Amino acid sequence: MIPKSKSKFIKQLQVKKYRKQEQCFVVEGAKSVQELLRSDFDVLWLAATPSFMEAQAKVIKRREVECLVATADELAEVGTLQTNDGALAIARFKPNVPPPEKTGIKLVLDDIRDPGNLGTIIRTADWYGIRDIIASEETADLYNPKVISATMGSFCRVRVFYTSLPEYLPKQKLPVYGTFLEGHHVHQVFFPESALLVIGNEARGISVEVARLVSQKITIPKWGDAESLNAGVATGIMLDNLRRSQK
Amino acid sequence: MIPKSKSKFIKQLQVKKYRKQEQCFVVEGAKSVQELLRSDFDVLWLAATPSFMEAQAKVIKRREVECLVATADELAEVGTLQTNDGALAIARFKPNVPPPEKTGIKLVLDDIRDPGNLGTIIRTADWYGIRDIIASEETADLYNPKVISATMGSFCRVRVFYTSLPEYLPKQKLPVYGTFLEGHHVHQVFFPESALLVIGNEARGISVEVARLVSQKITIPKWGDAESLNAGVATGIMLDNLRRSQK
Repeated sequence: MIPKSKSKFIKQLQVKKYRKQEQCFVVEGAKSVQELLRSDFDVLWLAATPSFMEAQAKVIKRREVECLVATADELAEVGTLQTNDGALAIARFKPNVPPPEKTGIKLVLDDIRDPGNLGTIIRTADWYGIRDIIASEETADLYNPKVISATMGSFCRVRVFYTSLPEYLPKQKLPVYGTFLEGHHVHQVFFPESALLVIGNEARGISVEVARLVSQKITIPKWGDAESLNAGVATGIMLDNLRRSQK
Repeated sequence: MIPKSKSKFIKQLQVKKYRKQEQCFVVEGAKSVQELLRSDFDVLWLAATPSFMEAQAKVIKRREVECLVATADELAEVGTLQTNDGALAIARFKPNVPPPEKTGIKLVLDDIRDPGNLGTIIRTADWYGIRDIIASEETADLYNPKVISATMGSFCRVRVFYTSLPEYLPKQKLPVYGTFLEGHHVHQVFFPESALLVIGNEARGISVEVARLVSQKITIPKWGDAESLNAGVATGIMLDNLRRSQK
């Protein structure tokens, strides 16, 4: 049973204002919670089905985390998922600090507003071994339940730092790549080992202020008639080309 | 003003059963309706803001389609979008017939359940000049408002044929490519001019019955730790590689 005070708390955390105030967020679903327990996130408590608790007994014990027994229906009832296959956890925000590494590839998100797109971009970054994302302040909140869910556990491995891009970018001594409707054909670009790759907003692409800071304009060529690609799809295509040219 | 009978009809069309019964679907948003009016879909009627009607006056007249005046708020109220920037239309289903062409690249969807993913896949297919998609019967409904909206107008150019894949695929005399966790590295594959490309279900990938019919297994290599890619992202990466190798 999840006590009323806790289920109320879970529901409050669906709202950004409360998440910020409490510095906590909700992780839902067996796979995501399983990865959370193995990450360096601070886990406050979790609610899970007996079978999840049995399967994850070792890590739950090692982390000394409070664990309430709940049915799958209860988990779905208090959470945002239509169905929940076993677990829900409350974890603490990580501090919003700039990425430590001065090298490697980092993604830069210029106002990605849709939580599903942000989650998919984080998952895709994880697939391509990218550990750091710099996001504009208008980008969707990493800790939104829809974002966490769409990352499929990748939020445990990819860090997101929110900042003002026009302030952050000029201080970096790395080439800045960005996708535009006109630019160098992505199949012909050779990416360096270290660079920043800007992904633009869903509706208007890369903003004028950020475009000014892009040193290498790239385009994903099209063969048909769509006006644009989904931001997550564009990220996948860019990163696949990037890793291929780095080989 | 949108009369009550019509707003009720629009709301009913959010439900698959009613869409099937009426053989009609709803298109929302200025850009999508604009593309609909220029497509070969049969448009029953539309509701739009005065400024949309003025901007599209020629095509509305040419198509002789009934047009109700409405405010943006009214359009949002009767539709599924949070905000609507100018128009909503009712159009008729196209008949569910196999694609005419025996050549070229066709996508095959093996149970893509998420409407957003299906819409994104259609949009991505359109970007890469693919005109035909074969979808399993369990794939999300093309005419679901979320699918139509996620295609960003590409539903006007890409046809979707629903059928049983285990019955359809063996009759085709084309190589069948499919993405698996193990297979030929996509960067090293040379795609032919004509082929079928299977995209698997979000959770379980390509089903056993369909996997048996795949002649060329391909994998998208990974550099990091995510377990899988989003289905739309995987489609984009496959099609980018395909068009590149065909050059």
